[in-house]
Amino acid sequence: MGGNNIQRACNTVDSLKRTGMSSSLDILGEASVSEHEADEYQKAYLEMIPAMSAHMQAWTDVEIVDQLHGRAAPRLNVSLKLSSLYSQIDASDTKGSVHAIKQRLIPILECALEHHAFVMIDMEQYDYKNIILTCFLEILEESRFRHWPDLGIAIQAYLRDAFDDLLRIVEALKKRATPATVRLVRGAYWDYETIVADQNNWPSPVWLHKNDSDANFEHCMGFLFSEHPVIETVVATHNTRSLAAAMAIAESHKLSNQDYEFQMLYGMADSLKNSLVQRQQHLRIYVPYGETLPGMAYLVRRLLENSSGQSVLDMGLTHEQPVDLDKPEFSLHEEDKKHSVDDHFQNQSLYRLTETAERAVFVQALSQCRQQFGQVYPLTIDGKSYHTKQSIISITPASPEETVGVVASADQRQADAALASAKKAHVYWRRVSVTERANHLRKIASLLQDRRVEFAAWQIFEAGKNWREADADVCEAIDFLNYYADQAERLEQVAVDQSSGEQNTLCYRSRGVGLVIPPWNFPLAILTGMMAATIVCGNTAIVKPSSQTPVIAVKFVELIHQAGLPDGVVNLIAGSGADIGEYLANHVDVQVIAFTGSIAVGSRLINIAAQLHPGQTHIKRIIAEMGGKNAIIVDSDADMDEAVTGTVSSAFGFQGQKCSAASRVIVLDHIYDSFLERLVETARSLRTGPPEDPGNVMGPVINTQAHTKILSAVNDGKQQAQLALYDSVGHFGKGYFIPPVIFKEVTADSMLAQVEIFGPVLSVLRARDFDQALQLANNSKYALTGGVYSRDPDHLQRAKSEFNVGNLYLNRKITGALVSRQPFGGYKLSGTGYKAGGENYLLQFMDSSTITENTMRRGFAPIEVHKDK
Amino acid sequence: MGGNNIQRACNTVDSLKRTGMSSSLDILGEASVSEHEADEYQKAYLEMIPAMSAHMQAWTDVEIVDQLHGRAAPRLNVSLKLSSLYSQIDASDTKGSVHAIKQRLIPILECALEHHAFVMIDMEQYDYKNIILTCFLEILEESRFRHWPDLGIAIQAYLRDAFDDLLRIVEALKKRATPATVRLVRGAYWDYETIVADQNNWPSPVWLHKNDSDANFEHCMGFLFSEHPVIETVVATHNTRSLAAAMAIAESHKLSNQDYEFQMLYGMADSLKNSLVQRQQHLRIYVPYGETLPGMAYLVRRLLENSSGQSVLDMGLTHEQPVDLDKPEFSLHEEDKKHSVDDHFQNQSLYRLTETAERAVFVQALSQCRQQFGQVYPLTIDGKSYHTKQSIISITPASPEETVGVVASADQRQADAALASAKKAHVYWRRVSVTERANHLRKIASLLQDRRVEFAAWQIFEAGKNWREADADVCEAIDFLNYYADQAERLEQVAVDQSSGEQNTLCYRSRGVGLVIPPWNFPLAILTGMMAATIVCGNTAIVKPSSQTPVIAVKFVELIHQAGLPDGVVNLIAGSGADIGEYLANHVDVQVIAFTGSIAVGSRLINIAAQLHPGQTHIKRIIAEMGGKNAIIVDSDADMDEAVTGTVSSAFGFQGQKCSAASRVIVLDHIYDSFLERLVETARSLRTGPPEDPGNVMGPVINTQAHTKILSAVNDGKQQAQLALYDSVGHFGKGYFIPPVIFKEVTADSMLAQVEIFGPVLSVLRARDFDQALQLANNSKYALTGGVYSRDPDHLQRAKSEFNVGNLYLNRKITGALVSRQPFGGYKLSGTGYKAGGENYLLQFMDSSTITENTMRRGFAPIEVHKDK
Repeated sequence: MGGNNIQRACNTVDSLKRTGMSSSLDILGEASVSEHEADEYQKAYLEMIPAMSAHMQAWTDVEIVDQLHGRAAPRLNVSLKLSSLYSQIDASDTKGSVHAIKQRLIPILECALEHHAFVMIDMEQYDYKNIILTCFLEILEESRFRHWPDLGIAIQAYLRDAFDDLLRIVEALKKRATPATVRLVRGAYWDYETIVADQNNWPSPVWLHKNDSDANFEHCMGFLFSEHPVIETVVATHNTRSLAAAMAIAESHKLSNQDYEFQMLYGMADSLKNSLVQRQQHLRIYVPYGETLPGMAYLVRRLLENSSGQSVLDMGLTHEQPVDLDKPEFSLHEEDKKHSVDDHFQNQSLYRLTETAERAVFVQALSQCRQQFGQVYPLTIDGKSYHTKQSIISITPASPEETVGVVASADQRQADAALASAKKAHVYWRRVSVTERANHLRKIASLLQDRRVEFAAWQIFEAGKNWREADADVCEAIDFLNYYADQAERLEQVAVDQSSGEQNTLCYRSRGVGLVIPPWNFPLAILTGMMAATIVCGNTAIVKPSSQTPVIAVKFVELIHQAGLPDGVVNLIAGSGADIGEYLANHVDVQVIAFTGSIAVGSRLINIAAQLHPGQTHIKRIIAEMGGKNAIIVDSDADMDEAVTGTVSSAFGFQGQKCSAASRVIVLDHIYDSFLERLVETARSLRTGPPEDPGNVMGPVINTQAHTKILSAVNDGKQQAQLALYDSVGHFGKGYFIPPVIFKEVTADSMLAQVEIFGPVLSVLRARDFDQALQLANNSKYALTGGVYSRDPDHLQRAKSEFNVGNLYLNRKITGALVSRQPFGGYKLSGTGYKAGGENYLLQFMDSSTITENTMRRGFAPIEVHKDK
Repeated sequence: MGGNNIQRACNTVDSLKRTGMSSSLDILGEASVSEHEADEYQKAYLEMIPAMSAHMQAWTDVEIVDQLHGRAAPRLNVSLKLSSLYSQIDASDTKGSVHAIKQRLIPILECALEHHAFVMIDMEQYDYKNIILTCFLEILEESRFRHWPDLGIAIQAYLRDAFDDLLRIVEALKKRATPATVRLVRGAYWDYETIVADQNNWPSPVWLHKNDSDANFEHCMGFLFSEHPVIETVVATHNTRSLAAAMAIAESHKLSNQDYEFQMLYGMADSLKNSLVQRQQHLRIYVPYGETLPGMAYLVRRLLENSSGQSVLDMGLTHEQPVDLDKPEFSLHEEDKKHSVDDHFQNQSLYRLTETAERAVFVQALSQCRQQFGQVYPLTIDGKSYHTKQSIISITPASPEETVGVVASADQRQADAALASAKKAHVYWRRVSVTERANHLRKIASLLQDRRVEFAAWQIFEAGKNWREADADVCEAIDFLNYYADQAERLEQVAVDQSSGEQNTLCYRSRGVGLVIPPWNFPLAILTGMMAATIVCGNTAIVKPSSQTPVIAVKFVELIHQAGLPDGVVNLIAGSGADIGEYLANHVDVQVIAFTGSIAVGSRLINIAAQLHPGQTHIKRIIAEMGGKNAIIVDSDADMDEAVTGTVSSAFGFQGQKCSAASRVIVLDHIYDSFLERLVETARSLRTGPPEDPGNVMGPVINTQAHTKILSAVNDGKQQAQLALYDSVGHFGKGYFIPPVIFKEVTADSMLAQVEIFGPVLSVLRARDFDQALQLANNSKYALTGGVYSRDPDHLQRAKSEFNVGNLYLNRKITGALVSRQPFGGYKLSGTGYKAGGENYLLQFMDSSTITENTMRRGFAPIEVHKDK
């Protein structure tokens, strides 16, 4: 906020004043992506309030503008977005978010109080609503603001719970006995809320029909007017019907023009504004201003909002016709019904974590897990438990002195027993109908769904995932079970090209014993996916979990057996990969190997699988998903807010320990410096610490070897490129924590650009143009994931055809592929198989038979196919 | 035909005579599957005619029965099926078939002449029509039969060319000046003809609508009556409308009841028959009799014919209602139109070879090929021809002293050049649109279609295929081109599970350079299939043809370039597999290997492909189709005619040199002896010799090594089992001929039951029940093709779920899978890949990318997916 801006703001409010309107100033800026930006945002208000206030004090009184609610209204009125005051705002950490926001909000409020300015807290997307409302309600009760009436909050009538929120506010205001303002709006994020809810299979927080939003708007307005003067009401609308309704309802409550105000946006509906002023209505104009980079987001949103066919505001303006407004509950009912009857595969919904109760179950599950720490777990072979002399001690990487559990470790004898069990079970299992096998998967999914949070909690401890990552892993496991169940049924019998007198069908058959070797980074999801695919096809499985995360595997196999899966269909043997893993992979009785892990182990297994041993009567099938060195290209016209947050989230989510994680970001020369600056600040703002605390986005890396290896790579990297971010790791105790590391000016062929580090280390490369950016992106032996942030349709098209990756993401983060929606997997050295969570995946676990039946007998066909000819 | 049967026949004709009807005797038996059966059939007539004739001479005269056409009609009237007089009857060898049939027919005719019997030649399926008609016309002109009027032929009015055939007959009769009889029937093979035409994409030889058959029947009848007395007419129908029409038309031509006769089947429509007799019409009853095993086929056909909803005869009987009969041409027109607008993939039709002109083009093409024998052919690299010092001499295995061609043989330098060319071409070719690549394939298919017979002729010489096998190979090549073109377009962009605010697409990408190593046994089809799949996916190809069949490969690559395929997309280098084959398979620049051949070479290539060489940035994909030791199970209730001919055709087609060929037949104990006996006689009846002559079903094996190896396996086999058939190979000259070899009582684990011999050697195993049969069938390291002949639905169902083969055939031969209709390929040690000619095949030649585009911008989505929610 330079003085230049303030001068322009003065001019604007002066001219509004001349036309009889008051103003509310909003400094452009939402989605502060770093704490640095949050500080800047706060500073802007702290500078603007005294300056503007001084300017406006010099005005002469105009009653219609200055008098409101029977007193002199503050001349300066500012609107404020709380999300801009804390870059790490997150519903899962509501408490921490409220605390951090208030740290920066209170000085602004104190400043406003001192300079007799009104502060209106804007409402934002639904994920932040409870945080924003909580901040407001807590502020109301702070003793220094207790008698301050010049404070307000916006409430969005398009939300289904708007009325309940109004009740909470009225209750609080009655308690404090000083009024405050509610600005009733319809809400500006309708598309966003609808899409986000749809993408996550969440119930929509907004009314889906305009009529319902309208009805709720008038319903809430009536309530607000009825609570006058406890609540002072602002009606924010451009809709003539709503304006008329407001006046009529106000009149019915015997309110005068001075007892409420209207608000409209600057630059819109000017004739409407003038008629209100002529009617002596109090009209405040919402004036966004500023020119900082983050401000662009706001302007774009407002532009789109006013051109979107679905915008509630827009619909009000353009489809001006009398409608009957039903009670909103009516159509809600219909929507919900429609949702429940849809039997198409649906991804399991993540917890939204906006509600206190949702967050409480996590806290409880974590506590219950911790109580079980240190227990001893057996192997499971043929449904029976085996304890062994050797065992694997599984620790929690956030505090390695804590033992999550001790798991029996198999040797060759147990491996042989597991093979015998799997072979025996196959004889029975392969004859079980596909539907029955699929239903076993669905049963497991259903049990897992019931115990989601528990399974997430184990991962938070054993793998070091944060709440959301752990929740996502469990959801993906559930998805794999349900999806592969559906797919197996789909593939049960595929009709092929038919002809008269014969019937051709394609059938699939199980192969035999499958060896499943999952990684530790998605210890439940990938284990479950590879196992589910193996067994739903009629194979039996030997699962050798990662030695870093054996407890989650044991817990899951316990659940499988509770679900009633026959003994021997899944056998669990933890143990050394080099030892029993290779022994099993080499074994003549193993027919399929499903592996996810490093290229080193993967290429060794590919080699082993290609050997034809004496007596072997099959060629082993291997599905190997391996590494990545994934790049995001940031084009010169990219949306910076989205590129920065998307890159940070892709690179540092789960500490960069995903095969899909971004480890290279290739930035166009033109914007390299500004992008890098925001990237570094954004990454620096991520909180690192034990993932039990939902405020810590970044947890530990998996173990001491990984910790050492990553730090050593960082050390080597310093010889090749410049460190742009490398904060001390000293203050996190004994956990294997590494906060985000960013290298800049990384060169194309250096280790930092070529080698998968598998940790929170991001290399920034500079590209002179989009061609070179693509070339750099493709300069890798891997081809797993990749992303492009660009607004140039040609560049997006070129990326689609030329960016060599298995999963390409345009204008979004490059991690978090969902089963069915984003079939996942790479090529080059990233993998050998067809996409997990995709239609072709199961083909790899089966053989196929074409069955041709001659239906013509002695020249006659019982079915009269030819009749249609 | 025992005396017992003759006695029963006498009783039947006696009782018919008593009711005023005459008779035509037909000895049951069609589809003589061996020359032995043909001899038996002839013998039956030679015995029956004198015996029956003597019996009937003793009758007293009854005018209505005995007087016809103004003379005493022969009391004995026999019907005869010419196909039963030659087991190798085949349209492709019309001349040979006519000759062979006449050899056995003339003695019957002489016998009939001597014993004053009438001989009616039945008409059979369309494939034999011209052979049968030709026999009849030639007999008419034989001097000893020239003045014999007691001879007739059946003409089927449901055939579109029935009228033209009548014209030919009238012309011949006018020339010889002695009348003969035409029995006008509707035709009894309507289902069969329709299905066969549909399965082969041939134009239907029969009218598709009953009305058209009816109209044609009356049209032909009118013509026949108008040609009285040159032609003497028999109207064979049970349809009252047709009967009435016949009488009316006869009257209009001023014919008396003695000038024509009616015929009906024995045991049907008795009241109708009686009314005809009451009307003093001449009525002859067609009496089939006999009890030999082959006779069953006839009875079954007659039973089904009279219960099939589509049977013309049946429709006439049951849907007795007046209809307007259009000119048949009218609906023909519609049918044909419908056929031509169907743009769904259709298999290329084989030549039906019923027409003289079709056969003539084969003869001509063979002659033209032979004129080109001995030419020298180059390699093709990057569109340029290369001659080399080393070369491969390709001989014709039927007469090894003849050199088909001399083809340049590549060494490592040319292999490197081919790689460089393919790599360079890939840069361009992968960016060519899928549609354009698909159209290149279609163009090649179209050129190949124009030159089908030429390409078949080369195979007849170079591979030793017979006409039909060679034609089928070329058709399959055309099918692969068209089918993979369609499939590539289908896979171009696959939408996956969608969600609001994002767009998910699955795209496929080329891998790079593909190495194509086809076998010699389908030297064009498999080469073309693997090559087409490689290049339509955007890869480029290096084709290393088999050293046994390099000329056909060179000819095809010439054609490809004539079709305008860009240089370097397909490079042809003949040469040693152990040498340049392995060199290329090992090369770091080869990304896909498509191989069809032996398990020895295949497993070696699988091993090579699994190596990760320094600098390699991909895991090689290998598609290996290997051997089989394919079994047919003949259940105790199997249709013997079909089981015998299906087994013989599966085992000895192309001398057993197909990976799909039957090399084991597992016969249920109960029918083992009778099946074996017919099997041996049927196989023995196959004619072996140079495949230029279409009368030789069996040609040579591919080369001297194969000849030696197969004979040595036969020699070894003698130690393990009993030879049931092993005819001398001495009289075939220098060609590598081996007539069918059959071993009986082969044991489960012997070499004869386990090792792929790849020649005309069939092992017969005995099974005590169906369980054991399945167990024996599955007792193999291979799982390629298999078959079951059974009428037991439970057994067929068990085979479907338990017979471990990639292609299972029920009640038909196990070779001849068609592209798209029978996706082809095995598992266990038979192959690694997805089915050729099936929907998943192309997946193996590509990598895939899921592209996820965020379509939500700042909270707004341009496409309103959510509106439908």
